[in-house]
Amino acid sequence: MSTYKAKVFVTLKPSILDPQGRTVERALSHLDHGNVAGVRVGKYIELTLTGTREAAEAQLKDITQNVLSNPVMEDARWELEEA
Amino acid sequence: MSTYKAKVFVTLKPSILDPQGRTVERALSHLDHGNVAGVRVGKYIELTLTGTREAAEAQLKDITQNVLSNPVMEDARWELEEA
Repeated sequence: MSTYKAKVFVTLKPSILDPQGRTVERALSHLDHGNVAGVRVGKYIELTLTGTREAAEAQLKDITQNVLSNPVMEDARWELEEA
Repeated sequence: MSTYKAKVFVTLKPSILDPQGRTVERALSHLDHGNVAGVRVGKYIELTLTGTREAAEAQLKDITQNVLSNPVMEDARWELEEA
């Protein structure tokens, strides 16, 4: 039994419009940051898990795909490290 | 002049309550993930910049601190890599 620290990154799929990112991009261009493009806003989730490495990986995969992201519209990836 | 891909991670400061994270944690515990704790929900922003490496780093630091995060409540860190 160990404690693991997980980081989950959720991003909209490239084909999905990102109005929040477009708004940030427009705001930046008005603030003299016209060389900034392709702004996409996603989610970054940190959590801790206890258990064996294998169990924690399987559980994190399940949580990432079924709770923290919508696989229809979003891509998700995760990192797991011992705390 | 090169193109750089930047990743910005914005998280609430540890002393700030995170109701969204608490809600996710409670939902997970009802879904038989009771060994998950410390859920914190932040933002993950991707963008591209053009310019020299030094200019891009300075600009990204400015954008991260002054546009993408609220330094009173949030911590922010960034990564920059050539695209």
